[in-house]
Order: sequence, then structure tokens, then C-alpha cells
Amino acid sequence: MKTLQVALGKRSYPIYIGQGILENSELYAAHIRGKEVLIVTNETIAPLYLQALENALSDQYRVESVILPDGEQYKTLSVMNRIFDRLLELKFSRQVTLIALGGGVIGDMTGFAAACYQRGVPFIQVPTTLLSQVDSSVGGKTAVNHELGKNMIGAFYQPQCVIADTATLATLEARQLSSGIAEVIKYGLINDAEFFDWLEQHLPALKALDPEALASAIARSCQDKAAIVADDEHERGVRALLNLGHTFGHAIETGTGYGNWLHGEAIAVGMLMAADLSQRLGWLPTETVERIRAILQAAALPVEAPSEMTEQQFMDLMAVDKKVQEGVIRLILLRGIGQAVISDDYEAAQLSATLQAFIR
Amino acid sequence: MKTLQVALGKRSYPIYIGQGILENSELYAAHIRGKEVLIVTNETIAPLYLQALENALSDQYRVESVILPDGEQYKTLSVMNRIFDRLLELKFSRQVTLIALGGGVIGDMTGFAAACYQRGVPFIQVPTTLLSQVDSSVGGKTAVNHELGKNMIGAFYQPQCVIADTATLATLEARQLSSGIAEVIKYGLINDAEFFDWLEQHLPALKALDPEALASAIARSCQDKAAIVADDEHERGVRALLNLGHTFGHAIETGTGYGNWLHGEAIAVGMLMAADLSQRLGWLPTETVERIRAILQAAALPVEAPSEMTEQQFMDLMAVDKKVQEGVIRLILLRGIGQAVISDDYEAAQLSATLQAFIR
Repeated sequence: MKTLQVALGKRSYPIYIGQGILENSELYAAHIRGKEVLIVTNETIAPLYLQALENALSDQYRVESVILPDGEQYKTLSVMNRIFDRLLELKFSRQVTLIALGGGVIGDMTGFAAACYQRGVPFIQVPTTLLSQVDSSVGGKTAVNHELGKNMIGAFYQPQCVIADTATLATLEARQLSSGIAEVIKYGLINDAEFFDWLEQHLPALKALDPEALASAIARSCQDKAAIVADDEHERGVRALLNLGHTFGHAIETGTGYGNWLHGEAIAVGMLMAADLSQRLGWLPTETVERIRAILQAAALPVEAPSEMTEQQFMDLMAVDKKVQEGVIRLILLRGIGQAVISDDYEAAQLSATLQAFIR
Repeated sequence: MKTLQVALGKRSYPIYIGQGILENSELYAAHIRGKEVLIVTNETIAPLYLQALENALSDQYRVESVILPDGEQYKTLSVMNRIFDRLLELKFSRQVTLIALGGGVIGDMTGFAAACYQRGVPFIQVPTTLLSQVDSSVGGKTAVNHELGKNMIGAFYQPQCVIADTATLATLEARQLSSGIAEVIKYGLINDAEFFDWLEQHLPALKALDPEALASAIARSCQDKAAIVADDEHERGVRALLNLGHTFGHAIETGTGYGNWLHGEAIAVGMLMAADLSQRLGWLPTETVERIRAILQAAALPVEAPSEMTEQQFMDLMAVDKKVQEGVIRLILLRGIGQAVISDDYEAAQLSATLQAFIR
């Protein structure tokens, strides 16, 4: 088992990464203060791991659960309210600990519910997808979607710990695994060219679920992200780099209806669009754009925008993104692999050319 | 105009108290960073003050508004969602400032919406009721209700400043004014016996809306509260004293249906119930209980529980209160006027006797 520490002063917490650690009750015990535990999970994950987790904890705690529907389209205020319904039916107090057992949607909603229940109770992340193991594990971003924009309602709220069990990836659909790999590739692109090289070599091992390769990729991604978050917990500056591909990607997720494109699929195209625009600005040679396209394709990720979306729809959806300041869309662009920058230094015509190149 | 500073380190902010300051654009300008302003108000307040506030700000900012229904029964996640709807329709960014123009319900919902929109944007409180001027102004507690419990979903989130215009109290219904006075009396009871004496003398002046008396009472209440909050922002200890009367009072508000009993009315009875139980424990002489009853009656506040509530209903509702720890109901009790204490040092039979004395 690997252990990483996310350094955030009083809110620091460990990430445990390993095979079969989901049922290790000692890992939990170090981070649960009260006697009440509510496991929040979904209909897909519950049959696979809920019983095992309940068994691991029920000797020491009063363990209850709530099972939500599975999918990004359910990451809403009204579905989150079911967590509050359950907590209040059970009369669970401020001493409760919530456990998020599932992917990013469960993690985001459970974390936000923990931030809000009685104005804040502790929670533990047990991410069961590659994407959530590398992304939601670090950073404390919790949220739900609004029909007019993704992740628009939420809180910065840190977990007590993260327990990332690589064994859970064996039950992941191939599309979900690829979606996670997109997020892993992102860390290489942002500020870790060495890791990008490593990924180009180890992509087959990751796709074959080699435990060593997975643990290395997860740990490196979390380290890269933790270093950025420790610098800028509330996204006032450098943390925005983590949104590489996300302004384009969120437009795709919203434009196609939450749940149709997976998050990693949408940001894969988004990253390639960012690379394309960077190339148009003269910041990136064509070979580098092609290298990015190649690794995304090798990971079975999409490299074109959804056929049903128009340029105008992209522009409208991108205009409500959180990175917009006073009407100007700030994008994360690339000056090289491992050299992402925040920039609004592009012409409308150049952005338009990129959008057109990816549409249809 | 009086100015008080609430000392919370980086989250410190001023409270301005005075006649006619609602339209003082300079007070706002010092605390608004971007160009976008959304005023959140309700159907009762909008016709009275919305236009004046918009006029004061529209030279310098893009000012928009959202008007919510009036009443505690609308302090819900789904009504709060209308604030998000409006913000997103307007494509307002993270640089927006929300202004809460109204009583406690508007303040609580707007503050919570500000805490959550894009994971946190600034907000300004413009409380227009006595209760919100003395209570919501200090402490950063924001929340909405759940059908199973009051204020169960929320955040600790501080405003940029509070602008308490005593002129707005002229349009307040008599019941609302009394409800605010209940909260003012609470500060005397908790830790300021001198203020309690002053209130016994100045109650007629407050009821007659004497501006000097009002400003003094508001400033003293805010000071008393700010001193406690500065010690314990997240209610891990002494801050719980501010809930004097609230465990009983929340049960009354929930039990009678939100909006039927005003908050101050419910906590008036709740404070008297706390005094009664304290007397049964031998901590308070009968004369003191009668002195408390007398000032509440002079303020036209209720001193008996709602006729439709049963002892069992009280016990059930009190059991979900946030002050409950591992099944034990901790109450705020009195060892004298100005000497509130947190205690679970009572027998079930004594609590039962108090409940029975107030029911029917």
C-alpha cells in the first residue's frame, strides 16, 4: 500500500492506494470520531462492495446506507436531498461520518452533503473508478450540477482520508477505465512531461489493469494534483490549470445531456481542442498535437466533438463556465507537453477555427 | 451611524447601524469587488425598498434582482435553487456579489446560496427586521430548512459587511417587532445582566421605535453575540449558548409548521421553558423566572406552548436538534440572568415536568 499526504495545514489528509484495502477497517478507524456512519453509494456499486464495507465497519459503528441512482444526470440538489432525508430519518447527529463509496458523482454529492449537513460533518472518500481515484481524491471540490451549468453549486470541503482500492477497477466498464485514463494523461500535459512519456510506454499495462502500473499512475497523478492544490486551495490562480480541457469538456457534457458523454471522454476532446488552439497560436508544433491525439486514441478516447453540437452552442455553454471573468473566456492552453498556461490571449476567430475543426 | 467590527481574522467584517443608511452607496462600494450585483429579496420587502437600493447602485454596477416568496416555509433547497436559476440565466460569474435584502429567511438563504454558487461568492447583508439585525448580522450561520428539521442544511459563511438600517423597522408588523425583541432579550439572559436591566427600562422606547434606543439595543446585541462568535466560530463550545431557548423553540416552529409561529415567538416560550427547567433543578429562584415571564409579556410575546403540541411531539422534535450528541439532548439552561450554561445534567422526569407545565 502506498500512502500520500495532501498538505493543507489543519485540513491535511492521507490518500491510501493499494489492492484490496476497501475492507481494511483499521484505515477507517483512524479517521472516524463518532459512532454513526452513513455509507452513500449507487445502484451499480452497492451490489459489488456495500456488504463488504458494512461488514468491515459494523463491529465498531452503527452503519447505515443510502443507495442513489447511478449517473451524472442524478448529480442534482434534489437527489442530494435524499442523503439529508436519510440522515434525518436516522436522526444522525453532527458526530456522523459519511463515506462516499463510488465514482466521482457519488464523491462530489457526498462531499457536498457532508459540507452542508448541520453546516459540516466529516466524510471519507472510497473512490471505485480510476477517474475518481485520480481526480476527486485530491482537491476538496464538491458540487452538484444545475441544468444551466455543471458543478455550479458546491463547496470546497476536504475529506478525512481517501481509500483508493485498485481492485475495484476490475469491475469497471472499458469506457469508464478510458475516461479515467484521460484524467491521468491530463496531469502529464499540465506540468509533468516525464509522466507523459511514462504513460505513452505504460498505456497497455494500465489498460490491462496491471496493479503496479495502476498504483504508480494513481499515486503520480495525485502527487501532481496535490502539489498544485496545496499552492492554491480555493482556485484563485494556478489551480485553474487543472481545468485543462474542462471548459470545452463541460460544454460537451452539458450540451449532450449529463450522462451521455463520460467526463473523461469530454475532457479528452477538450484537451485536444486546447492543443489545437495552442497550435493555431503558434505555441505548439503540429507533431505535439499529433502525439496528444495518438495517446488519446490509444486509450480508446474520442478525438472529435459530438456530431449534434454547433459552434454557437459551444460558445453559449462556455460563456457560463466558472473560468469566465467579466465576460472573457479564459482557457487553459499549452506551450508544450507539461507546460499548461492560463490565457485569454487568443482571437475570437482562432477559437472559432478550433471549434469548427472539431465539429461534424 | 454606529460601526462595529466583527473580529474573525481574515473573515472580519463591519456592521453599520443607523437611520436611512440602506441607500448609502459608499457603504456598499467599499465591499463590492466586481461589476455584477444580484439583490435577493421577497415579495413583502421588494415594493418597499428594492427600487431605492437598485437606484443607489445602478450607476456603478450591473444590478439585477430575484424576488422570492415571503415566509419561513419557503426557506428550502428548492426555493434557494431559484437564486441559482437567476444567477445562471444572467450568466453571472464568480465575481458577482449577492445582496440579501430582507429578514432572517432572506439572509439565511442568500448567505447559503453565496456560499455554494460556484463554490463561494461574496455577499452583503441588508437586514430589514429587528430579528435579523440582531441575529443574522453576526455569526455567519446560513441555512435552509428540511421538512424533518430546521436549519439542518447550511454553511458557516461570513458576509462582506452588514448594513442595518433602523428606518426599515417602521414598516415592520408588531408581531415581527416583538419577535426581534425576544432575540434581544436573549442576549441579556445569556451573559449580559446589565443589558437585561436596561431592556426592562427601555422596552416602551423600543416598542415605540425610538431610533436611539433601537440603535443601542441592536449594537449591544451584536457586540454580545460577536464576542461569543469570535471565541468559537464553528460552534464547538461556548457558541452553543446562543441557542438559549432554541431547542424548545425549533421544536415549536417545526411542530406547528414553518411560518405559523415566528422564530422570536417560539424562542420566547423556549427561553421561559429553559428558565422553568433551571428552576426545577434549583438553579434559579421563582422570582427570576417571573421576571423573565414579565419582560416577555411586556414585549407581547407568547409564554405558553402551542395548544396543539404534545409532550411526545416535543421529545421527538428535540431529538433531531443539532445540539444532540450521541442521543443526549444538551440544553442551554440558566444559573441566573446573564449566566447561561450548556448542560445535560437533568433528569428525564424534570424535563417532562417542564414540558407538561407549558402544554395546554
